[in-house]
Amino acid sequence: MPAPTASLDEIREICRRLPGPDLEAGTAVRTRQAELTKPPGSLGRLEDLAFWLACWQRREMPACDHPRIAVFAGNHGVAAARRVSAYPVAVTAQMVANFQSGGAAVNQLAKLTDSDLQVHEMALDRPTADFTQGPAMAADACAGAIAYGMMAAQPGVDVLALGEMGIGNTTNAAALCAALFGGEPSAWVGPGTGVDTDGLERKRKAVADGLAANAAAMTDPFEVLRCLGGHELAAIVGAIIAARQGGIPVLLDGFTCTAAAAVLHAFDHHALDHCVIAHVSAEPGHRLLIDRLGRAPLLDLGMRLGEASGAALAILILKAAAACHGGMATFAEASVSGAV
Amino acid sequence: MPAPTASLDEIREICRRLPGPDLEAGTAVRTRQAELTKPPGSLGRLEDLAFWLACWQRREMPACDHPRIAVFAGNHGVAAARRVSAYPVAVTAQMVANFQSGGAAVNQLAKLTDSDLQVHEMALDRPTADFTQGPAMAADACAGAIAYGMMAAQPGVDVLALGEMGIGNTTNAAALCAALFGGEPSAWVGPGTGVDTDGLERKRKAVADGLAANAAAMTDPFEVLRCLGGHELAAIVGAIIAARQGGIPVLLDGFTCTAAAAVLHAFDHHALDHCVIAHVSAEPGHRLLIDRLGRAPLLDLGMRLGEASGAALAILILKAAAACHGGMATFAEASVSGAV
Repeated sequence: MPAPTASLDEIREICRRLPGPDLEAGTAVRTRQAELTKPPGSLGRLEDLAFWLACWQRREMPACDHPRIAVFAGNHGVAAARRVSAYPVAVTAQMVANFQSGGAAVNQLAKLTDSDLQVHEMALDRPTADFTQGPAMAADACAGAIAYGMMAAQPGVDVLALGEMGIGNTTNAAALCAALFGGEPSAWVGPGTGVDTDGLERKRKAVADGLAANAAAMTDPFEVLRCLGGHELAAIVGAIIAARQGGIPVLLDGFTCTAAAAVLHAFDHHALDHCVIAHVSAEPGHRLLIDRLGRAPLLDLGMRLGEASGAALAILILKAAAACHGGMATFAEASVSGAV
Repeated sequence: MPAPTASLDEIREICRRLPGPDLEAGTAVRTRQAELTKPPGSLGRLEDLAFWLACWQRREMPACDHPRIAVFAGNHGVAAARRVSAYPVAVTAQMVANFQSGGAAVNQLAKLTDSDLQVHEMALDRPTADFTQGPAMAADACAGAIAYGMMAAQPGVDVLALGEMGIGNTTNAAALCAALFGGEPSAWVGPGTGVDTDGLERKRKAVADGLAANAAAMTDPFEVLRCLGGHELAAIVGAIIAARQGGIPVLLDGFTCTAAAAVLHAFDHHALDHCVIAHVSAEPGHRLLIDRLGRAPLLDLGMRLGEASGAALAILILKAAAACHGGMATFAEASVSGAV
């Protein structure tokens, strides 16, 4: 992980100038949809997705031909200090190696979806600080991780699916949600990779301690990210911002990924308009978080793996939406009668 | 549509001797899943689908490499007699031509999923009788349509996605459901392709009249199918039966397709164990029907197009399930530590 230079203030400023949707492209989609050989609206969400893709890709014929899956991996001081995961911290690096050798779930889904899979190892040997003792990151480290994540959104990519790997990071996600939306820590804490009852209680206590230790510092959503987040969560924030600037619609994965995105939502309620939540995770906090964001996930398949697996799967739905929109005949072309 | 010879009694007899699942293949899947590099159960429904595919494909490594999409098209006397659709009856044949020239939604989804798409035109110039006046089909016509549908399940196909096209056939589906499960016709009747309030009332009345006109004849589920179904619904029944015999898991599409399948469920509650309901349609009766069948659909995307579009989309989910199961590394292969 290099260290691009940026400050949190510069990033805040970028977030105040995010571009809006291309509604002309969207209107063209709606016009064509009315002419395609199907009853109006009968492709349901696929039609909404075609509209959404067009609005953010800024073109009348949306596509999902060059999807990228970006997985950011980071380590967390709180994981080692508070034993909040069912797995040892070493598994983060081991799973990164597994991604690199093609053995993880996301590798199979990247192949199936014909996606460019990029795995970003973020200083795994230098975990964030234990957030129960103070901020997880210094300001420059947080800003650097955001700037690093921005590089995932490159020209030529037409859809960006985001995900993460980081032992312990559902604890960070729960802490972020509690700080951004309020509510008892227990409402946001879940089993993650599968902790037992004692582990759940350690997670809950770690979140409560983290909120208390950082209460004074968390003056805005980016400070919440700095205090309770991690390298991979900050990188996801950066990738979302850069995708917006680059005209690339985003698929958000599960609880940790969506919690990172929620930082931007807290900063500006329209900052995630170019994002769709790919699936609802079995991690209980995710459904609650999606409700707070006012969103509807695309898929509900009880997945809770992270590593962008749900987002990767949803690429298939976007491909279907684009394929139907682009490939179907109109009533006139097919000589099919309209409604009487 | 040729006329294979079979009697309803022969078909009933076949349905009394349906093969069960290969639980050894299923056990092999569960054993491997515990060794793959992911927390146990974290791929959620994808893991259940891999198990289900293996049980019915009768092999330890399930696949979705050679899916077939079979769309059966039929016409209905009730459509012309009672004006129950927003579209003229001629649209059935026009849409079949659209399928044949590649312009419909299902064509795009067949291409995306690399599926063999077969469109079966079932005597469109000889619609079934108006079921509000008596049985829609004679016994030999119903049995012949079932036998015809059986031909869709051929060796080499590893997943069969079923669907239909038939102007007016959500009225048949509603009538079938009311006859099989009870309840007021209005609970099962919905807008279909988009009828207005008057059309909805015509549908409701047609269903009520159909139930009354055929009350004495509907002595078992196959008689219900004969009295209230149609050629394409009977063919779907046949395809489901033959797929079971041939070791081919089945994806069921929306309301009409699932209503046809419900005939088999009413005959034997295990007759659909090799079927998954691909999606829940926006047609309101579908959710109710799925509940009565005790199933959970894979997708919920507000689609209501029919023509196997939802089933075709779900092929992608099966491909993902098979790809993850077959392609992932084990903890030992990837040198990843297990839970502590």
